[in-house]
Amino acid sequence: MQTTVIYPGTFDPITNGHLDIIERSALLFPKIIVAVAASPSKKPLFELEQRIELVQQSCRHLANIEVIGFSGLLAEVIKQYQVKAIIRGVRAVADFEYELQLSHLNRLLTHGVESLFFPPSDRWSYVSSTMIREISLHGGDTQALVPQVVYQALQQKHAKHQQTLDVKA
Amino acid sequence: MQTTVIYPGTFDPITNGHLDIIERSALLFPKIIVAVAASPSKKPLFELEQRIELVQQSCRHLANIEVIGFSGLLAEVIKQYQVKAIIRGVRAVADFEYELQLSHLNRLLTHGVESLFFPPSDRWSYVSSTMIREISLHGGDTQALVPQVVYQALQQKHAKHQQTLDVKA
Amino acid sequence: MQTTVIYPGTFDPITNGHLDIIERSALLFPKIIVAVAASPSKKPLFELEQRIELVQQSCRHLANIEVIGFSGLLAEVIKQYQVKAIIRGVRAVADFEYELQLSHLNRLLTHGVESLFFPPSDRWSYVSSTMIREISLHGGDTQALVPQVVYQALQQKHAKHQQTLDVKA
Amino acid sequence: MQTTVIYPGTFDPITNGHLDIIERSALLFPKIIVAVAASPSKKPLFELEQRIELVQQSCRHLANIEVIGFSGLLAEVIKQYQVKAIIRGVRAVADFEYELQLSHLNRLLTHGVESLFFPPSDRWSYVSSTMIREISLHGGDTQALVPQVVYQALQQKHAKHQQTLDVKA
Amino acid sequence: MQTTVIYPGTFDPITNGHLDIIERSALLFPKIIVAVAASPSKKPLFELEQRIELVQQSCRHLANIEVIGFSGLLAEVIKQYQVKAIIRGVRAVADFEYELQLSHLNRLLTHGVESLFFPPSDRWSYVSSTMIREISLHGGDTQALVPQVVYQALQQKHAKHQQTLDVKA
Amino acid sequence: MQTTVIYPGTFDPITNGHLDIIERSALLFPKIIVAVAASPSKKPLFELEQRIELVQQSCRHLANIEVIGFSGLLAEVIKQYQVKAIIRGVRAVADFEYELQLSHLNRLLTHGVESLFFPPSDRWSYVSSTMIREISLHGGDTQALVPQVVYQALQQKHAKHQQTLDVKA
Repeated sequence: MQTTVIYPGTFDPITNGHLDIIERSALLFPKIIVAVAASPSKKPLFELEQRIELVQQSCRHLANIEVIGFSGLLAEVIKQYQVKAIIRGVRAVADFEYELQLSHLNRLLTHGVESLFFPPSDRWSYVSSTMIREISLHGGDTQALVPQVVYQALQQKHAKHQQTLDVKA
Repeated sequence: MQTTVIYPGTFDPITNGHLDIIERSALLFPKIIVAVAASPSKKPLFELEQRIELVQQSCRHLANIEVIGFSGLLAEVIKQYQVKAIIRGVRAVADFEYELQLSHLNRLLTHGVESLFFPPSDRWSYVSSTMIREISLHGGDTQALVPQVVYQALQQKHAKHQQTLDVKA
Repeated sequence: MQTTVIYPGTFDPITNGHLDIIERSALLFPKIIVAVAASPSKKPLFELEQRIELVQQSCRHLANIEVIGFSGLLAEVIKQYQVKAIIRGVRAVADFEYELQLSHLNRLLTHGVESLFFPPSDRWSYVSSTMIREISLHGGDTQALVPQVVYQALQQKHAKHQQTLDVKA
Repeated sequence: MQTTVIYPGTFDPITNGHLDIIERSALLFPKIIVAVAASPSKKPLFELEQRIELVQQSCRHLANIEVIGFSGLLAEVIKQYQVKAIIRGVRAVADFEYELQLSHLNRLLTHGVESLFFPPSDRWSYVSSTMIREISLHGGDTQALVPQVVYQALQQKHAKHQQTLDVKA
Repeated sequence: MQTTVIYPGTFDPITNGHLDIIERSALLFPKIIVAVAASPSKKPLFELEQRIELVQQSCRHLANIEVIGFSGLLAEVIKQYQVKAIIRGVRAVADFEYELQLSHLNRLLTHGVESLFFPPSDRWSYVSSTMIREISLHGGDTQALVPQVVYQALQQKHAKHQQTLDVKA
Repeated sequence: MQTTVIYPGTFDPITNGHLDIIERSALLFPKIIVAVAASPSKKPLFELEQRIELVQQSCRHLANIEVIGFSGLLAEVIKQYQVKAIIRGVRAVADFEYELQLSHLNRLLTHGVESLFFPPSDRWSYVSSTMIREISLHGGDTQALVPQVVYQALQQKHAKHQQTLDVKA
C-alpha cells in the first residue's frame, strides 16, 4: 500500500511544531509531500522560494519527504500527486473547528480525499508561525522554537529591518 | 512500510459513524486492528462477545481489518501488536479536548505511539452509541444510523425488554 | 401562522434561567408547550408531578403556555401536538455542541422539526438545575436563582433531609 | 401574533447555508426581513446592490421574505421595522461565542430584542461566504454550494478577473 | 510579600470590563502595573498617549495602580519592573485558548513569570474594545459600557468624523 | 496586604499538576489554604483523611500552605478563613466553561470573592486525578505523574485490590 499524504501550509516560517508533525508522519506513511502555499493574500514575511528552502533544509534528515510550492487550490495539487490524505496539525479548539470545516470542503472538492489531524506534542502546543514572527519582530529569542536555519534567517531579517530604521532615523 | 494502526473503543454498539472511520482507515493503512474494550465500569448494553461479533459482521467486506477484545490498558495491546498509531474519531470540540489529553497520556505510556484524529463524515457527525442506545430504549427507529446486524440486535434487546415489562405488569 | 413550539427539559427544578426563556418565547410564538421529561435514569430530586406543578405555578402570569409531562421519545410528543420547533436554552459551548447533535437527531426522528437556540440573559448564564440542587443540598441560599415556589419546595426538601439525619443520629 | 424577525448579514454572496436558514425561518415566522449589511470595512467582493439582488433572486419562491440593504447599526433597522427577534445561523463553537456576545450587545442597544440561533443543516455546516469566495478565486467549482444565480455571478467575476490578468500579461 | 503584577493590553479604549478587572486586582495584589501596548500594527483608534491618559483618569480612585506605555515585547517590561505575574481577563473560550498559548510563550520568554486569568463579571462578559469602537463609529450609545471620560472621548472622535464627512460632501 | 487564597478540590489523589499550581501560588500569595473536599457523592478512591495527608506530605517543602478538609459549601469555608480569592487550575476549554459558571456562582454565594484561573504548565496539561486512578487500576505506571508518596499509596491500593481478586479466584 503506497499511501502518499500531503502536509499543506504557508510555513512562514516552518517551526519546531511543523517539523515535529513532519517527522511523526514520516514514520507512518511511505511518502509525505510538504506543500508550501504561496498565500499572497497573507503578505508573508518570507518569499515563497525562501520558505520552500527553509523547509527543505529543516527536513534533510528525512528520506521520504518531498517539498513543493503551490498557488491556487490544494485540490489541484492533490489530483496531480495522487494524494490519499491531507495531514493537518491541530493544536487547539479554534484550529479544530476550522480544520473540520476545511476537511469537509476538501472532501467535496477532491471527491473523497481524507483529512487526518495530528495532535501536537505538548512541548510545541503553543508555537505558531504568527507568534514566531511577532517575537522576532521585537527582537525576542526564538532559538528554542524553530529549526536552526530558520533562526538564522529570522536574525538576518531582523538585522536588515534595524538597518532600515537606522537609515530612516 | 507495514504500518499497523489500532482503532479502540467500547463499540456499544458499533454505529455507521464507527464503520465509516474503519472503512476510511482501511484505504490508508495496510492493517487496522479494531480493539473492543471490555469497559465493565460503563455497564455496556451488549456483552463484550456480542459487541466483538457485531463489529466483525459489520466489517466483513473489508480485508485488512482484525477485530479483538481487550480489558485493561490500551498500552499493553499496543505493545503486543506492534501498533504504530491509534485512530480516533473526533466529532466535536468536547471530543477533541478529551482526545488531546488521552493522546498525550498514551504517548507517555507507550513510549511514543502516535494518535491520529479522523474528522467525521458530515452525515454521521451527530451519531454516537449513547444516542443510539437512548433512541432504541424508547422504541425509536435507528435503522438509518447503524449497520443492519446492529439494528436487528437492538430490536431483539428491545423486544426482550418489553416482554420483561409485560411479565412484571 | 399558528406556530406551536415546545420547550422540553427535566426541570429538576425549574430555575430563573428556564423561566426567562419561557417568558421570552411567549413574546415570539402563539403557543409554547413546556414538556417536563420523566427522566427516571437521572434519578431526579423532585417527582415528575411536583416538577410539572412547579413549572405551572411559575408560569401563571403567562397566557400562551401549556405544561405537560412525558416519558419516552420527544419525537412522539412533537407528532402528537403538531409542534413546529423545539426551543432550547444554550448557555455555553459545551451545551451548544450537545444541542447541535441533538438537533440533527431530532430533525431525523421527526422528519424535519426545527430546533431554535436561545442565548441566556447574562444574569442567568451560570444558573443550572444541577447547581441549584447542589447548593440547596448543603443549605446554601438559592432565593435569587429560582422562582419563589421552587425556593419553598427546596427548603421543605432540605428540612425533611435534616430531620432524617437527626433521626438517624 | 404578527412576529417579524430579521436575518442580518453581509451575504457576500448568499450561500445554500444562508438560503436554508431563510427557508426554515419562513416556515416559523409570518415575516422575515433579510437585511444585507453594506459592511464597507470588509471590502466585499460584490457591491451592496448586487448582493441584495442575488438574495432577492434566490428567495423568489418564498412569499413572506423582504430583502433590504442597510449601513450603520442594526439596532436602527430593528426599531424602524418593529422587529421582535434577530435570526442568526450558528455553525460552530467559534460562531456561537461571537454570536452570544453580539446577542447581549444587541439586547442592550435595542432595549430587549431577542436573538435566536439556528443550527445548520448537516449538509451546509461547512459552507461559508469566505470559503465560497476563496474557492471561486482559484477557479474551483462552487455549483453545489450556492444558488444558481450566485454561481453565475461568481463565474462572471472570475472570467473578468482572468481577462484583467491576460491584459496585464 | 510585595507581589507586583502587570495587566497588559491595547486599551483602545479602556472599557468597563477592563476597569472591573483592574479594580478586582487592586484588592488582591499590592501593586498593579497597567501596561498600554503601542500596537501600531492594529492601527488603533486612539493614540498611545490618549489611551494611557484615559486609563489613568479611569483609575484615579485606585491607589496601587501605575499606568505605563510600552512598545515591543512584554517580556522586556516584565524584567524591568520585577513583575511576578501577568493578569489577563478571559471572557470566552476563544480568549481562553489564545491566552493559554500566550501564557506558555511568556513563561518561556520571561523564564517563569506566571499568567493569571480573571473571569469576567457577568455584566461585562460581552464588552470588548472592538465592539465599543464599532458601536461608536455608527453613532450608537456606549455610555453604559465605558468609563465617563472614554465616553466623552468617543463622542469627540465621532463629532470630528462627522465634520470631515460634511466637509467632503 | 495579607491576601489569603484558597485552592479547593477533591484531590483524589493529588497529582503533579495540582502540586505545580500550589507551588506557583506559593510564590504569589502570602498564604494558600488547600481545601480537600469530602465529595462523598463522587465515591473517592482514597478516604478524606488519606487525601489530606497525601497533600500535606506533598507540600512539606512549602512554608505558606495550610491543608484542611471540608464538607458542604465552599462558601462557608471562605467566610471562616477570610479568603479573598479562589484558585483554580484550568487545563482545557471544558474546564474553563465549568469554572466560569462556578466563579459566578461563588461570587454570588460569597458576596464577592474572586476566582483566579491558573493555566497549566505544558508538562501537566493532560494529567487529571481521574486518569491517574484509571491508569493505576489497570496496573499502569503513574510514577512520572504524581508525587512519590502518592505513587506509593497507589501501589498499595493496587496490591490490595489484586489480593482481593486472588482470594476470590
